[in-house]
Amino acid sequence: MNTISREQLIQQLNWRYATKQYDPNRKISSEDWAALEEAMRLTPSSYGLPSWKAVVVTDPEVRRRLQVFAFDQSQVTEASHLVIFAAKKQITEQEVDEYLNLVAEIRSTPRTSLQKFREALIGGVVNGMDEAARRAWAARQAYIGLGNFINSAALLGIDASPMEGFLPDEFDRVLGLDKHGLHAVVMVAAGYRAETDKYATLTKVRPAKEDFLMEV
Amino acid sequence: MNTISREQLIQQLNWRYATKQYDPNRKISSEDWAALEEAMRLTPSSYGLPSWKAVVVTDPEVRRRLQVFAFDQSQVTEASHLVIFAAKKQITEQEVDEYLNLVAEIRSTPRTSLQKFREALIGGVVNGMDEAARRAWAARQAYIGLGNFINSAALLGIDASPMEGFLPDEFDRVLGLDKHGLHAVVMVAAGYRAETDKYATLTKVRPAKEDFLMEV
Repeated sequence: MNTISREQLIQQLNWRYATKQYDPNRKISSEDWAALEEAMRLTPSSYGLPSWKAVVVTDPEVRRRLQVFAFDQSQVTEASHLVIFAAKKQITEQEVDEYLNLVAEIRSTPRTSLQKFREALIGGVVNGMDEAARRAWAARQAYIGLGNFINSAALLGIDASPMEGFLPDEFDRVLGLDKHGLHAVVMVAAGYRAETDKYATLTKVRPAKEDFLMEV
Repeated sequence: MNTISREQLIQQLNWRYATKQYDPNRKISSEDWAALEEAMRLTPSSYGLPSWKAVVVTDPEVRRRLQVFAFDQSQVTEASHLVIFAAKKQITEQEVDEYLNLVAEIRSTPRTSLQKFREALIGGVVNGMDEAARRAWAARQAYIGLGNFINSAALLGIDASPMEGFLPDEFDRVLGLDKHGLHAVVMVAAGYRAETDKYATLTKVRPAKEDFLMEV
């Protein structure tokens, strides 16, 4: 255990904000970026089933092309890093089996012991949802990853901007996600705030505790 | 700034797991729980618009009733705390105006200066989505809160289990969410793992880095 204090958690979550203007000259160190990638990879997901991928866009020309389909928001090109959260369009029986092979391998457990789990996955995800429901489910899993990323970045003192304002079909085309069976659902820009970002000093607006929490 | 180290982040995210069996005698302290509630309240959301609420269920009898509609999973009653993430079914023009009043108040800015923002909110959320799309959008916002909660709990050394396996309509009924215009989308149990939880020592299964990350 290597826990943090409540004060660290709350101070850093108050420090963060959806950065609008990044310092284009400040890059996230490779060590910090590796930690953020690892944090994303460790994100829990329903049944543990891999349902989305993180697409890290480093090519400046690709980022310029994406910016056009993101209402020209400057974060797309000026932030140090850009990640597109891409949900799987389908979860096939084959993918379930690949996942179960991974479970068996990592946990040194016989594949046959996972038969009931296989039935739950096939019944719950492959056959239990129609395509629209499965896509919505995979998108929600990706959002757990988004929440994890924003939180992790804030705790490391790295700025991040969750962004939904883009044309996902165009993103799929530019990034070639279609041929991987993926669909862009949300993105995050990350880096360091510019000193001139006027949003940095605005007071955070959140509902009052009594409007946000219900106790039963 | 009161940042944490990369090692803390990764160690705690590796420490966490979806706890199956809680120690029913260990309760989260009121100080830690207040920090987790505050972390949830600070969750970012699209446009900053409040789109979900956290329903904290403390009544043991209500938790027993919910358990029946959650496939009898023991976490529902045995974990120290239980939170239902409830998304708003509707975002009305009135709610947009209440939010803008809050922005104006907190930021001491004239309400008239928010007119363009109002148009974006009405166009983007109230009129720009049909009911199904708006519900899906609100549910995704709640999942950012879920990701934030899981991450925050892990960093404080508190166990948590995200749970989708329940009947949301029955939850709505038991918790009286309908009359508040809310719909249960996901829940989390939190507390401390029982020493006997065999899942605690299983190796975490995640896709390999090269299967999870795409670089463009």
